[in-house]
Amino acid sequence: KAPEGRSSGVLERLNAGEVVIGDGGFVFALEKRGYVKAGPWTPEVTVTHPEAVRQLHREFLRAGANVMQAYTFYASDDKLENRSQTLKITVTQINEAACDLAKQVAGEGDALAAAGVCQTPSYLSCKSETDVKAVFKRQLDVFVKKNVDFLIAEYFEHVEEAVWAVEVLKTSGKPVAASMCIGPEGDLHGVPAGECAVRLVKAGAQIVGVNCHFDPMTCVKAVKLMKEGVEKSGLKAHYMVQPLAYHVPDSTYLGYTELPEFPFALEPRIVTRWDVHKYTREAYKAGIRFIGGCCGFEPYHIRAVAEELAAERGIMPAGSEKHGMWGAGLEMHTKPWVRARCRREYWENLLPASGRPKCASLSTPESWGVTKGHADLLQHKEATTTQEMKHALEMQKKHL
Amino acid sequence: KAPEGRSSGVLERLNAGEVVIGDGGFVFALEKRGYVKAGPWTPEVTVTHPEAVRQLHREFLRAGANVMQAYTFYASDDKLENRSQTLKITVTQINEAACDLAKQVAGEGDALAAAGVCQTPSYLSCKSETDVKAVFKRQLDVFVKKNVDFLIAEYFEHVEEAVWAVEVLKTSGKPVAASMCIGPEGDLHGVPAGECAVRLVKAGAQIVGVNCHFDPMTCVKAVKLMKEGVEKSGLKAHYMVQPLAYHVPDSTYLGYTELPEFPFALEPRIVTRWDVHKYTREAYKAGIRFIGGCCGFEPYHIRAVAEELAAERGIMPAGSEKHGMWGAGLEMHTKPWVRARCRREYWENLLPASGRPKCASLSTPESWGVTKGHADLLQHKEATTTQEMKHALEMQKKHL
Amino acid sequence: KAPEGRSSGVLERLNAGEVVIGDGGFVFALEKRGYVKAGPWTPEVTVTHPEAVRQLHREFLRAGANVMQAYTFYASDDKLENRSQTLKITVTQINEAACDLAKQVAGEGDALAAAGVCQTPSYLSCKSETDVKAVFKRQLDVFVKKNVDFLIAEYFEHVEEAVWAVEVLKTSGKPVAASMCIGPEGDLHGVPAGECAVRLVKAGAQIVGVNCHFDPMTCVKAVKLMKEGVEKSGLKAHYMVQPLAYHVPDSTYLGYTELPEFPFALEPRIVTRWDVHKYTREAYKAGIRFIGGCCGFEPYHIRAVAEELAAERGIMPAGSEKHGMWGAGLEMHTKPWVRARCRREYWENLLPASGRPKCASLSTPESWGVTKGHADLLQHKEATTTQEMKHALEMQKKHL
Amino acid sequence: KAPEGRSSGVLERLNAGEVVIGDGGFVFALEKRGYVKAGPWTPEVTVTHPEAVRQLHREFLRAGANVMQAYTFYASDDKLENRSQTLKITVTQINEAACDLAKQVAGEGDALAAAGVCQTPSYLSCKSETDVKAVFKRQLDVFVKKNVDFLIAEYFEHVEEAVWAVEVLKTSGKPVAASMCIGPEGDLHGVPAGECAVRLVKAGAQIVGVNCHFDPMTCVKAVKLMKEGVEKSGLKAHYMVQPLAYHVPDSTYLGYTELPEFPFALEPRIVTRWDVHKYTREAYKAGIRFIGGCCGFEPYHIRAVAEELAAERGIMPAGSEKHGMWGAGLEMHTKPWVRARCRREYWENLLPASGRPKCASLSTPESWGVTKGHADLLQHKEATTTQEMKHALEMQKKHL
Repeated sequence: KAPEGRSSGVLERLNAGEVVIGDGGFVFALEKRGYVKAGPWTPEVTVTHPEAVRQLHREFLRAGANVMQAYTFYASDDKLENRSQTLKITVTQINEAACDLAKQVAGEGDALAAAGVCQTPSYLSCKSETDVKAVFKRQLDVFVKKNVDFLIAEYFEHVEEAVWAVEVLKTSGKPVAASMCIGPEGDLHGVPAGECAVRLVKAGAQIVGVNCHFDPMTCVKAVKLMKEGVEKSGLKAHYMVQPLAYHVPDSTYLGYTELPEFPFALEPRIVTRWDVHKYTREAYKAGIRFIGGCCGFEPYHIRAVAEELAAERGIMPAGSEKHGMWGAGLEMHTKPWVRARCRREYWENLLPASGRPKCASLSTPESWGVTKGHADLLQHKEATTTQEMKHALEMQKKHL
Repeated sequence: KAPEGRSSGVLERLNAGEVVIGDGGFVFALEKRGYVKAGPWTPEVTVTHPEAVRQLHREFLRAGANVMQAYTFYASDDKLENRSQTLKITVTQINEAACDLAKQVAGEGDALAAAGVCQTPSYLSCKSETDVKAVFKRQLDVFVKKNVDFLIAEYFEHVEEAVWAVEVLKTSGKPVAASMCIGPEGDLHGVPAGECAVRLVKAGAQIVGVNCHFDPMTCVKAVKLMKEGVEKSGLKAHYMVQPLAYHVPDSTYLGYTELPEFPFALEPRIVTRWDVHKYTREAYKAGIRFIGGCCGFEPYHIRAVAEELAAERGIMPAGSEKHGMWGAGLEMHTKPWVRARCRREYWENLLPASGRPKCASLSTPESWGVTKGHADLLQHKEATTTQEMKHALEMQKKHL
Repeated sequence: KAPEGRSSGVLERLNAGEVVIGDGGFVFALEKRGYVKAGPWTPEVTVTHPEAVRQLHREFLRAGANVMQAYTFYASDDKLENRSQTLKITVTQINEAACDLAKQVAGEGDALAAAGVCQTPSYLSCKSETDVKAVFKRQLDVFVKKNVDFLIAEYFEHVEEAVWAVEVLKTSGKPVAASMCIGPEGDLHGVPAGECAVRLVKAGAQIVGVNCHFDPMTCVKAVKLMKEGVEKSGLKAHYMVQPLAYHVPDSTYLGYTELPEFPFALEPRIVTRWDVHKYTREAYKAGIRFIGGCCGFEPYHIRAVAEELAAERGIMPAGSEKHGMWGAGLEMHTKPWVRARCRREYWENLLPASGRPKCASLSTPESWGVTKGHADLLQHKEATTTQEMKHALEMQKKHL
Repeated sequence: KAPEGRSSGVLERLNAGEVVIGDGGFVFALEKRGYVKAGPWTPEVTVTHPEAVRQLHREFLRAGANVMQAYTFYASDDKLENRSQTLKITVTQINEAACDLAKQVAGEGDALAAAGVCQTPSYLSCKSETDVKAVFKRQLDVFVKKNVDFLIAEYFEHVEEAVWAVEVLKTSGKPVAASMCIGPEGDLHGVPAGECAVRLVKAGAQIVGVNCHFDPMTCVKAVKLMKEGVEKSGLKAHYMVQPLAYHVPDSTYLGYTELPEFPFALEPRIVTRWDVHKYTREAYKAGIRFIGGCCGFEPYHIRAVAEELAAERGIMPAGSEKHGMWGAGLEMHTKPWVRARCRREYWENLLPASGRPKCASLSTPESWGVTKGHADLLQHKEATTTQEMKHALEMQKKHL
């Protein structure tokens, strides 16, 4: 039992064989709620509207999440200035506010506060290891000062950069989880998923896995490969998975960002709570014990993770007070044909229609075939130039 | 200009030719956030977690909504007790809290507080006009006490009951809007949409229209028929539309409740913000000036209503500070192919894929063909009996 | 029993309550076999490759068809010359050969030879009743000379022209069937389906119905309306239906010609034999007794008509010797999982996948909104002019 | 130039760099025309209705096919007796008639007559090499007697058996083509496609490739792997491809027989002529020079092969006299919007709709996971027993 009524840490839980339920995606959820701008995606909302962030944390907590991940920002103040234009808020202010909010809500329930770093524009622009590590260090300083419970290096397309991040985070002495945004094909330099995991574990990550970019079942497949790699190397680790809440069978190695629907027309791909049940079971059977979600995961998706594992964990989330398992609440519906849907078999076997007879099932991803180092990916603090935009529009035309 | 710095009332606005933007759907949004139970659907959250309701109001306000509709409950305390089981909260407590929350947030911006009644189990169970009107009166008493700005009689399947509701609400002297959950086929007794509207206007409703049950374009079509009916009768009215945020081309006269996916697998049918742009334009062109949403409408959908009419209204919602029109914010995205999507033509013409190759486009609705008066629809305070459930399951088997 | 070993005539059969099974579509089948050119669609194959036409007749006979419809041509020699360019064959030669082939194969089994006229370019170009009737008369002269068993006026979009055709055909004293290519919406001048049927019966048609343009279920619906109209008028008639073998739920009043896929990409819409079983049952239940097919109907589709009605008719077609009812022949398949499909329930409930995840379910029909008299529809003997083609391409661009 | 006015042989053509166009699928085409029974699939029609077989040969010849493949039967008389029940026709009669028909029509144009053997029930039932080779030898004797131009060992799931077939056919001294019904995954024993090809070439096949089971693009992919394997081994060969005319992206290693739609509901998967253009180009670019089709390929599909390669080959098929390239014939259509479709760009970019909004894009294949040697695949001369059928139905239930 943890001191002062707090639960034990993430590693104690995982070592004890417990499941740790992650939270869902803040960026997409808060974009839909009106607080984050798609494109720059910066999280100044932690300062400007803390109540909106706190509310979302609370919903995930209520849904059963054991991790409140601080909604922090990764980059330098000059980038932030450019991205958010008229803003007078510093990166430090954003990240401190984010940690405070995560810790506050974590303290309201059985949850841990985590904070994280992710891939940097510096790396994509071929800056040196020293430069990239300095970016991570600046962020880490805030997390250490705010004393979050553990650290996550997530959303890395290249294992090289992810290793650098782990190496920096390890200096804090806190537990480190490392999660890449790759699928079963491996990282963007062609390093197989299993090998990525081995390198991360060797760098000191105690938990490894994937997040974002691919749909739930694909992410589980990728983590399975990671686990095989780690075990074959005689190493030990815990495993995590935090996928998209979108069906993206047509995405290729760059994931959902390549789909024509990204980011404003992904609605038909949103997974149902029943899809989440299947994903959770699959992840659990694969031996993954840190199970959450990324972009698109709303509180009710996380609740489905907790409900699927209610028997194994012996607890139900607070939010299930407002949710009958497998639709049981429908027994009280006014329409008798809806009442008849109050059972597991009904929802488990239903294949939902799209309601969109003029839309296809799959899209053709845009495969520009560019990765780290390519001129098209050079990041700069300034807004996109007219020249760059012209080039992008030409490339788009070519791929449509 | 309204007294005390408040905006003018709903009728003043509509009479002046202004657009009044409604809010979105509380029931479905709060179910996903973990505060409302699908099945009973009761809104005790206004008392137990007011911060969650307030936050959703604020998001709709930020998105541009001019109406904060109190999240009230329609029925008697005994029903509430049964539906929410262990609850010790009264209907009056719920409704008072709901009005307070709506008024508070309305006061934070350019919005009006409304409160509403909707169709009653009493009517479906063939109670008398006196009995049904008494149900409405009990609710009205709270709305009058809390002094909301105007009243809405909404979600009626039978115009007869809607007229009774309008007659009760009119006694308050406040403006009354009347909205039915019907499609172009008319009400469940076969009264054509145009005739429904005429009866409601004659009963005293100053605003008439439809909400819920059908998708945006279908609802606009129904309101057009209402407008034709009213104008042909030489009457005058304002028009409102608050549709589902789901594509349900396969629903029949009972709307989305008949679809096999209702209510837990509607995800692939969720409309995009671009669908909302089209709907808004269509509604505006049809002369409808009270434009909002019902189940499924999230804040970003309401923001799309406000953005589509930004030129006509001369204002942008606060939330657009975090949303470039037609994807303009993507100009700042890190991936160049996503930057190329920062333009209207791209999103306007995109047909989004479902990502679900094993799911069809349309479902077969369950058409039990029952309506008011049918034994299967008798409502009672007790939970569904075993006998009723057995019957429902048999009927379901027959229709699948 | 008919004299000389021949069966009795079409009216004797229908009056006796028998089902008369029509044949399928020659134009599309022979286009796929390489003998008819899509675009001009002229049937000179009756002269150039009679064995190909004879073979197709025989396949339909074998499949159970009781009607061998002569594969005749409707227009003048100058039109034929233009359409078939270098051809030295006259309309009379084509039509005589067509009648000979139909009669020959009809004589090989339990079938009648029919010949028909259909809508004329003259009518679309607003020629006079006298002119249009003269076109029909020239064709009739051949049919009378060749002494076919009965006559069909088919594929009319306007009932006015269909009545003229019936009036001409009636002068022969032979039984006359009249079939329009309309759906439940009625003819292109807005005459309701029921009224169309009344006019045709009054003009002397003993059998009325629809063919082509719409899918099987839609055509049955149109004939039902015809039957209702005729019965309400106190008249009497027999009913026929010969639909497309394509699913075209998205076609509007001009039928499948408006679909973007017409005529070279209709494959995914082809009905299965099981679809034909359902259609046949529906037509039979509606009291329709002349049941066949039009474009897309291949011999196996007609065999399905005959098999569905095997019990009612007491006979199986010769072709069923090579077809187990409801897949019974699969009992001999080498793969055990295919053997398990040898039963009605399996095929009746199967919803076949399209195998096309990048294609939608429905198309957007091109609705140019032009009909008889519109300049775009003026027909002339010459090839399309450059000016006309330019106009057509511009219109297409506008509709895509 | 070949002696006696005949064209040169298949190897002379391929060695000269010419394209040899294969024919389409007889089994499926003749099933639809009413002459072959799905399940037993036996070709006694060559004796009972030779005119039907001759007509189909002629249609393929007209479409541009350079190979008339005799429609022969593979098995023993006792099997034939069981499968065709009351039949008094011997295998020898069927195969002699088949060779005569192929030779006759080949002589009418620029085509060669081929005859073939395919995988045997004996092999699936684990008979010895000697036994299996004896089956091939009995068939070869007829082909040699009838002096066809070359031989094809086709539709083999296991390369071991295919090699045995090639070894037998080689004894005739005639050119031998070897074609397996495998996809890019290799044969059912797990031998990679490239290795299969190497073994076949070493056994003496001058032409290697694949046919049936998979869709056109998948088959091309498999042949590419074969070519790579052969070239890597320093061997030489010509390559052939004769795929299904169905889109089967969801089939797994046993191909379309595993799809729930096989064989009676494959319609929505039928490829268009434009799909065939793309396939032909892809095959040609891959260096494949014997290009034809298998099940589902109708004459118009083969015509599309010939038309796509018209420029390279300098000739158009006879059937193109009735087909404008890329829809050019539509310039003569009566409807102006159809005239506007007379161009390559239109058809090349069209994604055809399925017209089936209640059907999905993909199916779930039945993967029983059985192959050669498994009890479920034991073949016997008798009809399926009740016990076997019961087992099959149980397995089906388990997989649905």
